[in-house]
Amino acid sequence: MTVGFTLHATDGPARRGTLTTAHGTVETPAFMPVGTAATVKALPPAMVAETGAEILLGNTYHLMLRPGAERIARLGGLHAFMRWDRPILTDSGGFQVMSLAGRRTISEEGVLFQSHLDGSRHHLTPRTAVHIQHLLDSDVTMVLDECTPFPVDREVAAASMARSMRWAGRCRDAFVDRPGYGLFGIVQGSVFEDLRARSAAALLEIGFDGYAIGGLAVGEGQGTTFAMTDVTTPLLPANRPRYLMGVGKPDDLVGAVARGIDLFDCVLPTRSGRTGQAWTRFGPLSLSNARHAEDPRPLDPACRCPACRGGFSRAYLNHLVRAKEILAAILLTAHNLTYYQDLMAGLRAAIATGTLRAFQAAFAADFGGSTDNGSAPGGEHAARRADAAGTSFPR
Amino acid sequence: MTVGFTLHATDGPARRGTLTTAHGTVETPAFMPVGTAATVKALPPAMVAETGAEILLGNTYHLMLRPGAERIARLGGLHAFMRWDRPILTDSGGFQVMSLAGRRTISEEGVLFQSHLDGSRHHLTPRTAVHIQHLLDSDVTMVLDECTPFPVDREVAAASMARSMRWAGRCRDAFVDRPGYGLFGIVQGSVFEDLRARSAAALLEIGFDGYAIGGLAVGEGQGTTFAMTDVTTPLLPANRPRYLMGVGKPDDLVGAVARGIDLFDCVLPTRSGRTGQAWTRFGPLSLSNARHAEDPRPLDPACRCPACRGGFSRAYLNHLVRAKEILAAILLTAHNLTYYQDLMAGLRAAIATGTLRAFQAAFAADFGGSTDNGSAPGGEHAARRADAAGTSFPR
Repeated sequence: MTVGFTLHATDGPARRGTLTTAHGTVETPAFMPVGTAATVKALPPAMVAETGAEILLGNTYHLMLRPGAERIARLGGLHAFMRWDRPILTDSGGFQVMSLAGRRTISEEGVLFQSHLDGSRHHLTPRTAVHIQHLLDSDVTMVLDECTPFPVDREVAAASMARSMRWAGRCRDAFVDRPGYGLFGIVQGSVFEDLRARSAAALLEIGFDGYAIGGLAVGEGQGTTFAMTDVTTPLLPANRPRYLMGVGKPDDLVGAVARGIDLFDCVLPTRSGRTGQAWTRFGPLSLSNARHAEDPRPLDPACRCPACRGGFSRAYLNHLVRAKEILAAILLTAHNLTYYQDLMAGLRAAIATGTLRAFQAAFAADFGGSTDNGSAPGGEHAARRADAAGTSFPR
Repeated sequence: MTVGFTLHATDGPARRGTLTTAHGTVETPAFMPVGTAATVKALPPAMVAETGAEILLGNTYHLMLRPGAERIARLGGLHAFMRWDRPILTDSGGFQVMSLAGRRTISEEGVLFQSHLDGSRHHLTPRTAVHIQHLLDSDVTMVLDECTPFPVDREVAAASMARSMRWAGRCRDAFVDRPGYGLFGIVQGSVFEDLRARSAAALLEIGFDGYAIGGLAVGEGQGTTFAMTDVTTPLLPANRPRYLMGVGKPDDLVGAVARGIDLFDCVLPTRSGRTGQAWTRFGPLSLSNARHAEDPRPLDPACRCPACRGGFSRAYLNHLVRAKEILAAILLTAHNLTYYQDLMAGLRAAIATGTLRAFQAAFAADFGGSTDNGSAPGGEHAARRADAAGTSFPR
C-alpha cells in the first residue's frame, strides 16, 4: 500500500478528493504551507494547524545541511522534531541545488554542490535524495529532477527532461515502499507541449503514487502556466493526485484547481507575512502603506484568523510593520495562511456542489482580476476601490 | 479613588497583595513583561496572557515617537491599540531619553531631545510626560525623573535627585485623578543612603499612589541594589505598592521580594528569548550551545509553557536558534515569561503561607547561586551539573 487517493466529486476537470498518508488525511484540493527549515516561518505548529493546513512541505536541501537528515532521524523524524504530527511532503532538494549558480555541477549521476552555509561539498543523486527523504520520514517523497530556467532552448529542455526521467526511474528503484508513504514523479519539459507529453508518458511507464508538474511558475506567466497545466493533466491518471509545484497567488490557485490540480505549495503567503503584505478576498494589502496608519478596521472582519478575529487593526499592523516587530510577521503569516486555507476550502465546497464556475466568478469579482487571462490581478487596486466605496468586506 | 492596593499577608518584610486598577487586578508581588513598542516582542497578547502576566509595562519614549501618543489616543488608547485589556503601567520616557548621549539637554524644565528614529526634536517635561501617559490611557503613570548613571559623584546625585523631586511635584500637579488610575513617585539618590531617605521623604510629602525605587540595576551589583532596597522600603508607606524598576534576574526578584518589593519589570526574559537564552529553575541555558544539538529533552519537563508542554526538544530549539528562525524567539520568550510568572506565583504562595525562607533556600539550591550575596548566580554551571548528574528536573 502506498498513499491513498479517493476522488469524491468532479466539476469539469476540477477534482475533490482525499489523500491518505501514514500521518493522516488531506482533503484536496489542498495548499501546503512551506516549512523550509523544519518550521513554517514565524508560526508555532499549533497556529499552523489552526489555519486549517493539513499537510506541510519541507525542504530537503535546507534540512540535509542543517540540522542534517541523520540527526533528524535520530530525533525521531521530521514530524517529531518539529512537532507536526500531520502529513509532510518533502521536495527532493533539486530545485534549491540547481539555483546555486557557480556552486554546483550537474552530471548524469546527480548534482555536486557546495553548501551555502559552510561551503561543504555534497552529492545529491536520485538515490541520496530518496534516502534523505526516508530519513526525514516524509509521507510524500519527491523524485530528484532538474527544474529548467525560463526561458530555455528547446534542445536544452529536452535533454534536461530526458535526464530527469532517468533520475525518476532511479528514484523509483531507491524508494522503499511502506504503507502510507508515497513517491511522486515530476513532469518536466518547460513550455514545450510535446516534451511535457513525453515526460508524462515516461513517468507513467515507471509508475508513481502521484504526479507533479514542475518547472512552472518560474517567470513564464500565468497564461503559460495554465496552458502547460491544460496540456499535462489529461495525460495523468485520474486516480492519482496531481501537484502543481511552487504555485502560487490566490488567482493562480483558483485557475489551476479548475484545471484539475489537487496539491499546491508556495512561499508567497508566509514570505508576504514577513514583508508586511496581507492577502485578502479583495487582493493584497501593503500594511507599510501610510494610508493604513489610522485605519481601525481589521484586515477582513469576516476572517477567522487570529489577527482579524483578535481585533488587531490595520493601524496597529501598520505600526508593527514599520517598527519591524516580530508580531507583524506572526499576525500577517497567520492571516495569509488562513486566507489561503479558506480559499481552498471554498474551492473544495464548490467542486463538491458543482458550483465551481460561480465560485470562480465571485472570486474574480472580489479579488479584482481575472483568474484566467494571464494578467496580474487588480490586487491593491481592487482593495483600494473597495475601501473608497466604503463597501469593503460587505459580508 | 486611585489605584487600590490591599495587603493580604506578610512574611518578614515580604508582602502579598492585590493592586486594583481601571483595567483589572494584579496579584503582587508581580513581574511586568516589557511591551516597549505596543507589543511584548515576539508574542501575541493572548500568549502573553497565557504566561500568567496580569500587567504590562509600556515605554512612553518609544510610543510617543512611533506611532505617537495622539494617534494611539485616537485609536482608543494603548489597551485597545495593542489588544491587551488588562492593566498597563507606563514609564515616563525619562530613562530612555537620558540615555540619548549627545542628543539631549537636561534643564530645570525637562529634557530637550532628538528622536533616534528621524532626528525630530521633542521636549519632555513633567507636564508632557504625564499628558502623554494620559493619552496612552496608562493605568499607572510614572513621574518624570532622572536616572543617574553608576557610578556618580555624591554632589551630582544630590542635585539630580533634588530636581527629580521638583519634577515629581509638577507631575503630581499635572496628573488627572480618575478612579482606577494612579501616579507613582520614584525614589532616587543613587547609592547614597541619606539621599535615598531625603528622596523618599520628599515623595511622601507630595503623596503618591505608589512608590518606585529607581536608579538601580544600572551596574552597581546585586548587593548594593539590595542594600539600597533595604534602606528605602522601611521609609515607604505599607499601604501603597512598591516597584523596583528594571529588576531583574530571577535571583534578583527573589531577594527583592524578600525585602518588601511588590512590582518588577525587566527586558531580560524577553530579550533573552530573542538571543537564544532560556531561564529555568536550574539557571540559564544557552540554546545555541552545541551540547544541546541532539538533546531530546524539553527545557523543563515540569514547565507548563508552550515550548515545554508542546514537547519541543532542546535539540529543536538549538536548530531554530542556529537557523535564526522566528519560532526560536516565540518559544523561548513564551518559556522565559512563563518561568518568570511561575516564579512570582511561587513567591506569592510562599508569602501567603509564611514559608518564604524555605522557598528562598529551595530556589537557591536549584538555581545554583545565592540570592543574597551580590554574586552572579551559578546559572549555566548549575544547569550543567544537573545535566551531568542525570538528575536534572527531578520533580
